[in-house]
Amino acid sequence: MKRNILPLIGMVAGILLIFASISVNSNIMSFVDAPSLIITLVGSFCALLISFPFNTLKKVPALLKKLMFTPEDDLKGLIDRITELARKSRTEGILSIESEIEELNNPLLIHGLEMVVDGTDIDTIENILNIELDQMEDRHSIGHEVFLKWGEYAPAFGMIGTLIGLIAMLGDLQDPSLIGSGMATALITTFYGSFLANLIFLPIAKNLEVQTANELKANEMIVEGVLALQRGDNPRVIEQKLSSYLSQKEKQGKDEKEDLEVAEELTR
Amino acid sequence: MKRNILPLIGMVAGILLIFASISVNSNIMSFVDAPSLIITLVGSFCALLISFPFNTLKKVPALLKKLMFTPEDDLKGLIDRITELARKSRTEGILSIESEIEELNNPLLIHGLEMVVDGTDIDTIENILNIELDQMEDRHSIGHEVFLKWGEYAPAFGMIGTLIGLIAMLGDLQDPSLIGSGMATALITTFYGSFLANLIFLPIAKNLEVQTANELKANEMIVEGVLALQRGDNPRVIEQKLSSYLSQKEKQGKDEKEDLEVAEELTR
Amino acid sequence: MKRNILPLIGMVAGILLIFASISVNSNIMSFVDAPSLIITLVGSFCALLISFPFNTLKKVPALLKKLMFTPEDDLKGLIDRITELARKSRTEGILSIESEIEELNNPLLIHGLEMVVDGTDIDTIENILNIELDQMEDRHSIGHEVFLKWGEYAPAFGMIGTLIGLIAMLGDLQDPSLIGSGMATALITTFYGSFLANLIFLPIAKNLEVQTANELKANEMIVEGVLALQRGDNPRVIEQKLSSYLSQKEKQGKDEKEDLEVAEELTR
Amino acid sequence: MKRNILPLIGMVAGILLIFASISVNSNIMSFVDAPSLIITLVGSFCALLISFPFNTLKKVPALLKKLMFTPEDDLKGLIDRITELARKSRTEGILSIESEIEELNNPLLIHGLEMVVDGTDIDTIENILNIELDQMEDRHSIGHEVFLKWGEYAPAFGMIGTLIGLIAMLGDLQDPSLIGSGMATALITTFYGSFLANLIFLPIAKNLEVQTANELKANEMIVEGVLALQRGDNPRVIEQKLSSYLSQKEKQGKDEKEDLEVAEELTR
Amino acid sequence: MKRNILPLIGMVAGILLIFASISVNSNIMSFVDAPSLIITLVGSFCALLISFPFNTLKKVPALLKKLMFTPEDDLKGLIDRITELARKSRTEGILSIESEIEELNNPLLIHGLEMVVDGTDIDTIENILNIELDQMEDRHSIGHEVFLKWGEYAPAFGMIGTLIGLIAMLGDLQDPSLIGSGMATALITTFYGSFLANLIFLPIAKNLEVQTANELKANEMIVEGVLALQRGDNPRVIEQKLSSYLSQKEKQGKDEKEDLEVAEELTR
Repeated sequence: MKRNILPLIGMVAGILLIFASISVNSNIMSFVDAPSLIITLVGSFCALLISFPFNTLKKVPALLKKLMFTPEDDLKGLIDRITELARKSRTEGILSIESEIEELNNPLLIHGLEMVVDGTDIDTIENILNIELDQMEDRHSIGHEVFLKWGEYAPAFGMIGTLIGLIAMLGDLQDPSLIGSGMATALITTFYGSFLANLIFLPIAKNLEVQTANELKANEMIVEGVLALQRGDNPRVIEQKLSSYLSQKEKQGKDEKEDLEVAEELTR
Repeated sequence: MKRNILPLIGMVAGILLIFASISVNSNIMSFVDAPSLIITLVGSFCALLISFPFNTLKKVPALLKKLMFTPEDDLKGLIDRITELARKSRTEGILSIESEIEELNNPLLIHGLEMVVDGTDIDTIENILNIELDQMEDRHSIGHEVFLKWGEYAPAFGMIGTLIGLIAMLGDLQDPSLIGSGMATALITTFYGSFLANLIFLPIAKNLEVQTANELKANEMIVEGVLALQRGDNPRVIEQKLSSYLSQKEKQGKDEKEDLEVAEELTR
Repeated sequence: MKRNILPLIGMVAGILLIFASISVNSNIMSFVDAPSLIITLVGSFCALLISFPFNTLKKVPALLKKLMFTPEDDLKGLIDRITELARKSRTEGILSIESEIEELNNPLLIHGLEMVVDGTDIDTIENILNIELDQMEDRHSIGHEVFLKWGEYAPAFGMIGTLIGLIAMLGDLQDPSLIGSGMATALITTFYGSFLANLIFLPIAKNLEVQTANELKANEMIVEGVLALQRGDNPRVIEQKLSSYLSQKEKQGKDEKEDLEVAEELTR
Repeated sequence: MKRNILPLIGMVAGILLIFASISVNSNIMSFVDAPSLIITLVGSFCALLISFPFNTLKKVPALLKKLMFTPEDDLKGLIDRITELARKSRTEGILSIESEIEELNNPLLIHGLEMVVDGTDIDTIENILNIELDQMEDRHSIGHEVFLKWGEYAPAFGMIGTLIGLIAMLGDLQDPSLIGSGMATALITTFYGSFLANLIFLPIAKNLEVQTANELKANEMIVEGVLALQRGDNPRVIEQKLSSYLSQKEKQGKDEKEDLEVAEELTR
Repeated sequence: MKRNILPLIGMVAGILLIFASISVNSNIMSFVDAPSLIITLVGSFCALLISFPFNTLKKVPALLKKLMFTPEDDLKGLIDRITELARKSRTEGILSIESEIEELNNPLLIHGLEMVVDGTDIDTIENILNIELDQMEDRHSIGHEVFLKWGEYAPAFGMIGTLIGLIAMLGDLQDPSLIGSGMATALITTFYGSFLANLIFLPIAKNLEVQTANELKANEMIVEGVLALQRGDNPRVIEQKLSSYLSQKEKQGKDEKEDLEVAEELTR
């Protein structure tokens, strides 16, 4: 697990920016309105309760954790590990890797290698790993889907709040000098909806989507590696094959890590 | 069948929220306008009558029932059942499972096993089950499609109502002091359209879509299981293969069930 | 051919509803404006003339007829027929069905069976029928595409008309008391565009889309049936295979037909 | 090549309609504003220059010619030709068709037959023709893509122009009586953007898309024909197979041609 | 690498056009507002920081370079090169091309040929090159995705800025004569958002998308070429096969190059 504070930085910076923009133009308190926040945030959450089964929504908090702690998808390390296991299995026999499996921490790789050691035939292994891949993708795409929907419902409920405010104000217009402040209050829900959607929900949805795609890539590589190991492919060929999942830069490895360290320093 | 009151809770809470929001700003009665509701709700329903054949629309109420009563897609139970049948069929012969078929309640599983017992060849079984899967998916996606369209037509008819109100008001503007209340009335249809779409139709559409996807997953697992049983695969391999449809947590089983009980209590 | 008056009912009811809504708020005549209708309806039709070749547009009226007369896609009857032919061909030889082909009325089925009787090999038959299926789908999806585009252009031309009205009014604003009626006139084209799109064009497009999907399903079943017959499959297996295209309810048959009669009575 | 003046008619009629609509409401000259046209048309063209490489944009004028001159995709004629060649090749040997190839004018057909005469093996021919098909589709879809983008940028630049006009007017509001004419001028760019997109760019994009789809259909038929000829299929089977690309009506042929002549007369 | 100044020209011309349009209507300085620019540009960038992992965003500047320096995807030159190598490998043996590989500069071609020289079997080569192709496409589509998202967030943050301005102005409306200038200021963020999206972010996104598609085409051709060379295909057949990736015009070659020179002159 790697701490990833960039999304937090983005969120805090975006919120501060909006606060600053408000305080330049007006007074923060005139933008704080609990009923407006409730109709936008809770109203759109009610729509989510209807849209997704409880079983699905329940998984969201766990998926959200990925926003802050990216699984260290150290592809290069994984490739080295698999190649090493393939080498050992070739020289000392497939059973020799049994003890090493326990030290691994990727569940797909563990399951795959266990089946190899158990002597499961290759078609069954491929079939099972591919189903697991599909199911994992389905489960992980839930976080993306839920936040995408929330990002659609929030502005809609913002508009519903604004319509309520407008209709109320226009229907009871004794003092025309109050139109301005009535409109201002009515527009606050639209502001909340737009703000929640574009700074919170939609970016989180995209982040989870990108992460799921990255995990899928790592998992496809693992499946390829387990199958090659089961076939008893030449370790050098396995390494070459799995390395095609890396970019030119990642293949060289070192600069990449240094880049990351610099980047982490910058984002601290 | 499992009672699922979450969507109902979401809908009721959302409606109460909007009522509360109205009564804070204004008076509920000024938001109740039968003609406005009729043009938004009935108008968009007329568009649905044109869009879908009667045969299709007729099936919607039955599909809607799924919103409240989720079929208990107890994947783990299904897997145990299929594995047990595979074991029996291996030791006592395929005909021994004939009597057990009647006790099952999943129609796809029943049909598949009947064909296995009848000695239908595997390609025909696979072909037939896959066609049934496709047809089932087509039929079940109807609910999703109809509500999605309703969720598109409702705001459109809300806007048509608002345009009618605006044109009527603007075209006969003798007393400018009435502009406000005229606009308020005109905007009510937009409010109804937005409310119906975002709290009722679109969330229902998404709910039915998610449920259809879940059923499809269960059905794919059943097809895989029936075919493995027909081929006479090793029951342990069958169990392993079908278990790849479960998440890590579901495989452990217990905590999941407890979670569900807690969840049901919370939603009571 | 089965008369299907539901779309007509939907359209008439929707139009009456809008008329009623207008007459409650205002006077019908103030919503009738020939130039506004022309720019919305004819303008969007001009855009259609550019968008589609004449060959394509020419086919639309014929496809539109399907809106009122649904081809009686009596899947159950078709299945019975094909099974019966398979039985005859098995007992009396393939040539015995030649005379029965003339009595059929589904062109795809006729063509397929003719090729079977002619002794065309199965790969060629499959190839030809699949090409015909694809071409049929392409041709039938034209109606859907044309009305979908019309449903996009109509509101766009409605907005163009409103912009013209607004610019004309605002550019020559000698008497401010005329702003209201100017705006009212300007908005009429937006109203027409929204009305034509959401009550006429888009619902028709969806209807044709659903019908094409249903035909495709029937045609896929026919191809499956013809190929099974050519292979000389067991008639019982053919029936079983084709029946997987039916829902549980359709398989029982009777209730379905009664349902339909009730439905037809309701819609008379 | 067949002259196709329908798109021109649609465009001219649409423009006249809009002119008429303007002159009914106002004075044409108040809608003519060179700076507004420049920001909408040239501004959106600048966005195109960034969006597509010059190599791509350069091909657009040639593709645009297709709007007025539809390649005579006389499928029936092509089928007759291919069948005839297949017959000749069967009776007189494959080399006998060499002299006839020069008289053809479809480049894909020519290339395919040349390879057949050269004795290229069938897999290579299929591979090459399929790559050519894909590349042709890619190249021809460029026209569609460029005009689709232009149809998206034009209204966006129309709105940018309107925003500039509005901000300028509102920021310097000494004489409130000028608001009207200021708004009118500001809205003209929105009008231009909407007009260019919906009467010119988007319909042209759709037209090119439909034509590319039609060409693709003809080319798929040619590939099928060349391969059948190479395999030495029975000419009667070839004719039957290729005819499945035609509709029922096209198969009868004559009425279709007469229809076209009538249509051409109508559109003259 | 080929300098490609067209996007720069488009961007500069578009910006000048907007400047000109502003100075015709008003005064440039009244459109310059640092806080408005910050909330639109930095706010939408904060949303990007949440949406994409740092690893992804980090690659954007490098991908952006492609906007100005198009890799010289001289397909015709590549084809000639591969054909020549195939000829040499046929006459002098596969090892003879080893020395020539170093002179190439396409990494995919180099890697492919190295594997051929190493005697890697054809299935492994195909597998590895296809994975590399997929990974390359994934990596290169990042630039497109990031700018597409930025083009969505920028107008959203423009609208958030406008809402803040409007609410602030309407909530504190002591001097009605200031409404105009308040609105003007509020609208500036909408203007910035629209301008940044439609002249900068979305066109760049499209440009990167088109370039990735072109590279993919070149890379597919290279894979096809390497595999043909490994199989020891006839060099004439290889040339013919690879040439199907070219358009008619590109096959003739010369005019194309001259065209490009003229084009480059024009865009200088």
